[in-house]
Amino acid sequence: MALGVSYNGGAFEGWQSQLSGRTVQDQLERALALFSALDKVTTLCAGRTDSGVHGLMQVVHFDTPLQRTEIAWMRGTNRYLPDTVAVQWARPVPRAFHARGSARSRRYAYVLLASPVRPSVDTGQVGWVFRPLDLHAMRAAAEMLVGEHDFTSFRASSCQALSPVKQMLKVNIHQRGAYWRFEFEASAFLHHMIRNIMGCLIAIGTGSQPVGWMAEVLAARSRDAAAPTFSPNGLYFLGPVYDPQWNLPTETPAFDWLP
Amino acid sequence: MALGVSYNGGAFEGWQSQLSGRTVQDQLERALALFSALDKVTTLCAGRTDSGVHGLMQVVHFDTPLQRTEIAWMRGTNRYLPDTVAVQWARPVPRAFHARGSARSRRYAYVLLASPVRPSVDTGQVGWVFRPLDLHAMRAAAEMLVGEHDFTSFRASSCQALSPVKQMLKVNIHQRGAYWRFEFEASAFLHHMIRNIMGCLIAIGTGSQPVGWMAEVLAARSRDAAAPTFSPNGLYFLGPVYDPQWNLPTETPAFDWLP
Repeated sequence: MALGVSYNGGAFEGWQSQLSGRTVQDQLERALALFSALDKVTTLCAGRTDSGVHGLMQVVHFDTPLQRTEIAWMRGTNRYLPDTVAVQWARPVPRAFHARGSARSRRYAYVLLASPVRPSVDTGQVGWVFRPLDLHAMRAAAEMLVGEHDFTSFRASSCQALSPVKQMLKVNIHQRGAYWRFEFEASAFLHHMIRNIMGCLIAIGTGSQPVGWMAEVLAARSRDAAAPTFSPNGLYFLGPVYDPQWNLPTETPAFDWLP
Repeated sequence: MALGVSYNGGAFEGWQSQLSGRTVQDQLERALALFSALDKVTTLCAGRTDSGVHGLMQVVHFDTPLQRTEIAWMRGTNRYLPDTVAVQWARPVPRAFHARGSARSRRYAYVLLASPVRPSVDTGQVGWVFRPLDLHAMRAAAEMLVGEHDFTSFRASSCQALSPVKQMLKVNIHQRGAYWRFEFEASAFLHHMIRNIMGCLIAIGTGSQPVGWMAEVLAARSRDAAAPTFSPNGLYFLGPVYDPQWNLPTETPAFDWLP
């Protein structure tokens, strides 16, 4: 079985199960066990998210002997989930499907408030910069990240990926008034990669660094070369991209929430 | 002095000061007193909001002997406010200005998620309806509210307004994917008026009632005629509209947050 799951990461200690039980995975597996009347349900996700990071379409898969309709899985599980987590869809998948392994790429968005005044109504849901941003400078710098690169400079020391070489497929930047939406798609992301890239894009967007600095940071292959890791609050996992053969939904209503 | 204030109403017991101290007014007056180094600062607002209702540009005025720049008022007060409340701007105003009395009209928005799945990432910030909505039916029904009417049918029993007759200037409805934004402007609003109107618009939008039902409800001048009061969670006070003579900001960056 595969599920699409959306959540507000503000109240959780990230995705991955912990002894505290205060993670999204813990809450989801608890709800699935209650709905299934099974002792334990173990899920595998497409991409773990850190504390404070939100998910709009996380995908998980799990094995179950239970036969229920897709609607029953969605509604039944949601009944046992906290009000900041919801199953958006459920689909049966063949045994060969693997939420992480079958993903061809991953998509993330970062939402940034550029305003002299800090967030308030949207606290925990956006990053914040108090200086104005230069769209053209940020777009030019983002373009330097597209393609296959060694992203060591943007990699957290805790990162467990086998290789720092990833394929960045797309970086799009949109402005809507005081809110900026940055969208990233890559074959895979290193730990803290987007938050580290955001720190650099903001340094360039506010004029602290020239556009060409992004290429220097990338070429340095050293974490010391990049800006500090930016806030998790504006980061949204949009979800994995699968081959159409798996016949999984590619969108959820939750996508329309972002500015 | 006048301030524009934005807040997420989720964690507060409404705007108006209470013994508990857990209201937006209590937090704002506490922050102003700390910044001013005065025992007590008393503010008067343009429009009180209920528990769970958000404010994008509430306006307050107060008297103060303190001389500070506009930026100092904004930054200094924000330092003492919870992270879900922020002063967006500060402006000196003449004695004749009154945050409530000088307002020519008020603007509100209601954000609604129309989806088979309940809110998750946006919990507390949107109302929810699980059935699809008919835009044309809702627009036709909303049109019947525009103009001067006796809005008794949409008035809470707790309402303290002197008269139920108000001038509805505008009702606009926009759809963005699964999210709907309803914007209202009126000379003034009765207690629960928008939440009661929303209940009726949704009954019509989902086909439970015909378009013409709105005119019947309005003509009945009885609270029993209307739908139940809808959730406060999607309600945003956009702020008062003042005569240009007062030279106050008419927008804040927070406006761009809404879908």
